[in-house]
Amino acid sequence: MRPTSLDLSIGQPSLMPDTEPFEAATQWIREHGCPYPPYNGLPELRAAIATIYGGRNHTNADNVCVTNGSQEAIYLAIKTLLEPGRDEVLVVNPGYPSYPRCCALEGIACRDVKAQARDGFRIRASALLEALRPETRMIILGSPANPSGALLMQDDIDELARELTNRPGPPVMVVVDEVYRELTYAANPYPSMADAYPYTYIVQSMSKSCALTGLRVGFLIGPEDGVSLATRAHMLMLMSVSVFSQRVALEIVRKPERLRAHVPWYAAQRASMLEAAAAGDVPIIEPDGAFYTLVRLPERWRNDSLGAAHALLDEQDVVTVPGFLFGSQGEGYLRVSWSADPTSVRDGFARIGRFVQA
Amino acid sequence: MRPTSLDLSIGQPSLMPDTEPFEAATQWIREHGCPYPPYNGLPELRAAIATIYGGRNHTNADNVCVTNGSQEAIYLAIKTLLEPGRDEVLVVNPGYPSYPRCCALEGIACRDVKAQARDGFRIRASALLEALRPETRMIILGSPANPSGALLMQDDIDELARELTNRPGPPVMVVVDEVYRELTYAANPYPSMADAYPYTYIVQSMSKSCALTGLRVGFLIGPEDGVSLATRAHMLMLMSVSVFSQRVALEIVRKPERLRAHVPWYAAQRASMLEAAAAGDVPIIEPDGAFYTLVRLPERWRNDSLGAAHALLDEQDVVTVPGFLFGSQGEGYLRVSWSADPTSVRDGFARIGRFVQA
Repeated sequence: MRPTSLDLSIGQPSLMPDTEPFEAATQWIREHGCPYPPYNGLPELRAAIATIYGGRNHTNADNVCVTNGSQEAIYLAIKTLLEPGRDEVLVVNPGYPSYPRCCALEGIACRDVKAQARDGFRIRASALLEALRPETRMIILGSPANPSGALLMQDDIDELARELTNRPGPPVMVVVDEVYRELTYAANPYPSMADAYPYTYIVQSMSKSCALTGLRVGFLIGPEDGVSLATRAHMLMLMSVSVFSQRVALEIVRKPERLRAHVPWYAAQRASMLEAAAAGDVPIIEPDGAFYTLVRLPERWRNDSLGAAHALLDEQDVVTVPGFLFGSQGEGYLRVSWSADPTSVRDGFARIGRFVQA
Repeated sequence: MRPTSLDLSIGQPSLMPDTEPFEAATQWIREHGCPYPPYNGLPELRAAIATIYGGRNHTNADNVCVTNGSQEAIYLAIKTLLEPGRDEVLVVNPGYPSYPRCCALEGIACRDVKAQARDGFRIRASALLEALRPETRMIILGSPANPSGALLMQDDIDELARELTNRPGPPVMVVVDEVYRELTYAANPYPSMADAYPYTYIVQSMSKSCALTGLRVGFLIGPEDGVSLATRAHMLMLMSVSVFSQRVALEIVRKPERLRAHVPWYAAQRASMLEAAAAGDVPIIEPDGAFYTLVRLPERWRNDSLGAAHALLDEQDVVTVPGFLFGSQGEGYLRVSWSADPTSVRDGFARIGRFVQA
C-alpha cells in the first residue's frame, strides 16, 4: 500500500459520528465522576437494547450483557456456552474469520458449511441442517454477513427454527452477528432469528450503524441463563465496559432514530457502487447489506485471490482484501468495501474494471 | 445495608476526576471520528506508560498492551502465559480474590502462600521461595496489596530476583499488580520488581490514581514476547480498548503529575484514619499504601468475619468487607476502606471502636 493508493479494504465507516452523545457523556462525568458501572452494563441501556434488538424472545434488560464491542460478545458465547472436547460449532464459508479463530483459542471444534455463489452466498437452512451432527451445539453466522453482505432470509429462518425446535437432544444455539443489521437494503422488515427461535443469541454493536468502531460498545442478547453465564466470565475477564462509552450508547438509544441516521447515505453509496460496477463491467455479488461486495475474479486468478490483490495494487493502485481469508468459498473473489468517499468508490470500481477485463 | 449506613466497604475513590482530559478527548473525536485504535493500544500512550512504569527492563512501547482495566491485564497474563495441567501459580493469602478466580476460569492450578499479620501481611521473599515447586511458573501479588495495603519491600525484591534468576529450569514469572502504586505512603522511591527482574509483568491502571475506575484503561507491561502473546488473545477476545478512553489516558500521561494529583489528599486521609483508629482504640494493620486497612476483630469474632460484618452493620450501621473473602489469613479481620469523605471515615472508626470494645 502506497500513500497514493485507493483503499477499498477498510472495514469501518468513513462517516463522522454525531458528537452530541460524547458531549452529554462528558457532562455526566462532570456531575457523577467516572465510577464502575455494573458488570453487565447500565440497566437503562440494557433495557433499551432488549427492546430494539431482542425480538420476541429476549425482551428484558437481563437478556443483555454489555460487551467490549461485538468481538467480546462472540468470544463470550463461544467460551461460556460450549464445552471443549464435547461440543462443535458450525460457521458459514465464506464468513468472518474471527468466529473460527475464537473457537480455536478456546479449543472448541469448528466446521464450516459452504454458502454458494449462485445464492449470492446466502446461507440456506437446508445446508445448515444437513451439516448438523449429534455434537453440534452452536451455529454462528452474520446477517448481513461479512464479506458477502448476504442476509439470512425469512424462509430460511422459518425452516431453521422449525427443524431445530423439532430436533431431539440438547438445543442447538444460533448466534447471529447483527452488527450490520441497520445497513440492510434488500429486506424490510429485517428477518430476525430472535423472533423465531428462543435459543438465539444476538450479537450487536454501535460500531457500524453509528460510525463508532472505536467506542467498543457491543451487546450479547439471549436467554437469561446463557447471558448470566457469559456475564460471570466477562466480569473476570475485564470487569465491565467503560462507563463513558456506555453513556454515549445510552444517549444514542434514547433517540433510536440515531441508529439509522446513516442509512440514506449507505443506500446512495450502494446505488452508485452498483452503477460503477455495471459501468466498469465488474462482476460482483450484489450485497443485501453491510458495505462490502465480493468481486468475482477472472479465470487466471480463480485460485489465487492473494496474487490478484497484489496485482491489483501493483497495476491499479487499489487496496482490497483477498477472498481466501474468509474461507475456501471466498477464493476467487476480492472483498471490496464501498464505505469510502463516493469519488474513491467510483474511481476504484473503474480501476477494478480495467484489472478484471485486462 | 440501609440508606443511612456508613459505607466503608467501597473499592473505588470518592474523589471526582479531572474532566479536562475528557474534554480534550471529545475534541479529538470531533476532529478524527471514533475509529478502531490499534489492537495493542495507541503507540504514544504505550511509550509513555513504558517510561513511567516499565522500570529498567520494559522501556519500549512494545513492552505494553493497553487492556480493558487491570482486570484484563491479570486475566491475559494467566490465560496466555501459562498452560493448564502443567503450570502452577502462587498467590498471596490474604490477597485479591480475582487472581485465584481467573486461574480457576482458565483451569490453571493455583496455590496460596501465607503472609503473616506480624509482618503487616507483607509477603516475604523467603515464604515465596520456600513454596516454589518445579511446576510453579508464575507468582501473582499486589504491591500495595488489596486488602492489606502491604508493599513488596526492596529487600524482598532483591532476594526474590536473585534467587529466581539463579533457579534452574524455565523462568518463574512475577506478576505485580501495581494499581495502587501511586498511593504509597511508606516507601520512597517505590520498590519496583520490574527494575530488578526481567521476567516481571506489571499490571497497571488509571482507576485508582486518577479516580477513573469506570474508564477501563489498564496496562500489561512486560517482556515483548509475552506481551505479544497476550495481545493476540486480547485481539480475539475484544479487539481493542475504547479509543476515547485511551485518548483520556494519553492526556493524563502527557502531564504525568496528574497521576499523583490525588496523593496529598490520600496522605491526609491516612493520617486522620490512623488518628481515628488510635482514638477509638481500633486495632489495625497499618497500611503501606492503597486506601484500605485491616481491622483485627476481638476473640469472639476471630473465626467469623462474616458474622462480624453483619453484626457491625446491625449494631453500628457501618458497612465493611469480611476478611475471609481474601483468603484464610484474612479471617478474623474486616477490610475497612478510608477513601470515603473524611467525616464518614472519622465517624466510622469511632463506631468500629465501640463495636470491637463491646
